[in-house]
Amino acid sequence: MAVTFPRGWRAGSAACGIKAFTAGASAIPSGQKDDLAVVFSDRPCDAAGVFTTNKVKSATIVIDQLHLRQNRVQAVVINSGNANACTGAQGYKDALQMAKLTADRLDLDPPQVVVSSTGVIGRYLPMDAVKTGIAAACASLTEAGGEGAAKAIMTTDTVPKQSTGVVQIGGVEVRVGGMCKGSGMIHPNMATMLAYVTSDAAVEPGFLSQIVKRVADGSFNQVTVDGDSSTNDSFLVLANGAAGNPPVAAGTPEAEALEAALLAVARDLARQIARDGEGATRLITVGVSGGASSEEARMAARAVASSSLVKTAIHGGDPNWGRIVCALGYSGAELAIDRLELSIAGLTVFSRGAGQPVDLDAVRAAFEQPEILIHAELGLGEGSAEAWGCDLSEEYVRINADYTT
Amino acid sequence: MAVTFPRGWRAGSAACGIKAFTAGASAIPSGQKDDLAVVFSDRPCDAAGVFTTNKVKSATIVIDQLHLRQNRVQAVVINSGNANACTGAQGYKDALQMAKLTADRLDLDPPQVVVSSTGVIGRYLPMDAVKTGIAAACASLTEAGGEGAAKAIMTTDTVPKQSTGVVQIGGVEVRVGGMCKGSGMIHPNMATMLAYVTSDAAVEPGFLSQIVKRVADGSFNQVTVDGDSSTNDSFLVLANGAAGNPPVAAGTPEAEALEAALLAVARDLARQIARDGEGATRLITVGVSGGASSEEARMAARAVASSSLVKTAIHGGDPNWGRIVCALGYSGAELAIDRLELSIAGLTVFSRGAGQPVDLDAVRAAFEQPEILIHAELGLGEGSAEAWGCDLSEEYVRINADYTT
Repeated sequence: MAVTFPRGWRAGSAACGIKAFTAGASAIPSGQKDDLAVVFSDRPCDAAGVFTTNKVKSATIVIDQLHLRQNRVQAVVINSGNANACTGAQGYKDALQMAKLTADRLDLDPPQVVVSSTGVIGRYLPMDAVKTGIAAACASLTEAGGEGAAKAIMTTDTVPKQSTGVVQIGGVEVRVGGMCKGSGMIHPNMATMLAYVTSDAAVEPGFLSQIVKRVADGSFNQVTVDGDSSTNDSFLVLANGAAGNPPVAAGTPEAEALEAALLAVARDLARQIARDGEGATRLITVGVSGGASSEEARMAARAVASSSLVKTAIHGGDPNWGRIVCALGYSGAELAIDRLELSIAGLTVFSRGAGQPVDLDAVRAAFEQPEILIHAELGLGEGSAEAWGCDLSEEYVRINADYTT
Repeated sequence: MAVTFPRGWRAGSAACGIKAFTAGASAIPSGQKDDLAVVFSDRPCDAAGVFTTNKVKSATIVIDQLHLRQNRVQAVVINSGNANACTGAQGYKDALQMAKLTADRLDLDPPQVVVSSTGVIGRYLPMDAVKTGIAAACASLTEAGGEGAAKAIMTTDTVPKQSTGVVQIGGVEVRVGGMCKGSGMIHPNMATMLAYVTSDAAVEPGFLSQIVKRVADGSFNQVTVDGDSSTNDSFLVLANGAAGNPPVAAGTPEAEALEAALLAVARDLARQIARDGEGATRLITVGVSGGASSEEARMAARAVASSSLVKTAIHGGDPNWGRIVCALGYSGAELAIDRLELSIAGLTVFSRGAGQPVDLDAVRAAFEQPEILIHAELGLGEGSAEAWGCDLSEEYVRINADYTT
């Protein structure tokens, strides 16, 4: 149930044929999956978001940033099948209309609703279908509706992505839930990623806006490379206070505990995106320590996790660690080749400026596990980070994977 | 004959089994293709290079930068099958030894030889094989040897890449020739690109070092993204003066004419790299005009040409121009969506902030040509640029190409 795991949250979904109507269909196709979701809190939330850095933004992003300023959000409406991006003035009207239709059904003001869309760019939303879907989703809100919502927001995803966690704050059990969509493909960052983390924590107003960027940097931004994102990427965190804990204020141990719980759910979701990469068979986890800074460690880890040549080598079971060193080299992070220590599944493959004798069969076996751990110690400072990717298959692999063998 | 088209240039090549010996073979495989080339000028050249920005550099790059400082280069030795990168102190010894072995055969000093390697990272060069190859290549130098050299430097390339041009300077016909290797794959920038442009122009000493970066920016850097390059990427320009023209000095009309001729050959080679992309069936040429600056226009054009989603849409014949707008949006270049005019094969698909009515069948037909022209007018300034890419096929395509249909 994920986003409806925290107290005071319900969700509903509906099938309204948005992708089909966008492409010109005249009726909902049979077997149409749900493509519209509404997530609702029984009281206003503290809320914050991180959005795409693309200069071309979906109308929904602009509307959401406006609505979040009032900080009394109580519902999220999300459609798949049409991104409502590059749609000019009509796009803004349609995004606002989605908020208004949802608000009307739930007895809210439109600024209490945030809106997300994912799908094809450059086509107007089929608003008749959207209107029908919003009515149906709002009519079906339940505490068990989180799973349906997670399915409704999927596009090329092969599995719904959900996560939950609990944390004790002020003697009270606080719950966290989350869902996301997005496929970690060759350019993971170019397919829209939508992610929502809900909680029943009580927090001081504005608390979430102080931590949301850090949570994104430690999770979704390590699958989706900064500055290279789709028109619609969105990550929202909402906390409604239903747990009844003393409101969490920034700079306290409780704030740290809550941030850690939100980060844990966000990281779990980010890893699920990498694992569900298009055509992927393995999760690649890249750990970097000893970076000159945390930001540099994040850059280095991302470069390795998103390198097509590393991905194909791993898919092909080819222990070609040279490609990992190459990716670290172009990551932009400071690198002193003689201080670098590189290991794959705990086996040191590179140190003191050159390759080390290693049991290549053991490396190859490590590459064949469902999760592959690559670790780089840069030997420069205290910065550390993780990033996640997946392997790459098919023709590209046939050309590259056997390069050293 | 390409690199041996200008006067005073010869080339030779040999098969010495470098890839096989690197992988542990004990003899040259039968049918081994040539994998070592020597290009030789009968007199010292003005020479300049642009090299990888990767922090992990092949030993050859470091040696070349040293040798170019003396500016009396007369020969280039190149091997495929082993990149001599991440090879520590031994790598430097081996690269120097390649220069020395070549110099000895050609009666030069070692600093008169520049060295390139391409192939697997992290393995020591099999120097016995290299030594045999250098002797054989130097013994086979001919004026017709350019084609053999272009083949010897290939790795995953499916065709040798060569180009020639002529230009009148001071009443004299000056010749330019070039060869390169590199496959414009999903991440074009991650496979090593080696490129060599030779000329018989006479130039003032140091002239080429003043223009080489501009030539690279208008050609190879528009296939290979800056800052994201392999350990070995190299582009060298060498002019030996055999044409007998009055030496070209910077800032003169003759300098402009020569730079244009060098750029034309470099651009032709760059386009060949894109066209030979792994699995590619079409060349994509992206023109950008009206950029806030030339550098921004280059960034915008590169982003579109290297977008996997644009590449798959084109492969699938899917006129999904939204993906082009999205790529422009994350390129980093300034973009005012209401000023953008986008055309595919001359058909306007986007202007005034929204998609335009267009004959989708005509767009689809344009996508099916061997070369697809995409043009974006940004409406911001005077910056213009071109970039080249190729389409993307296989599973990734099956998932993405039909997204709007």
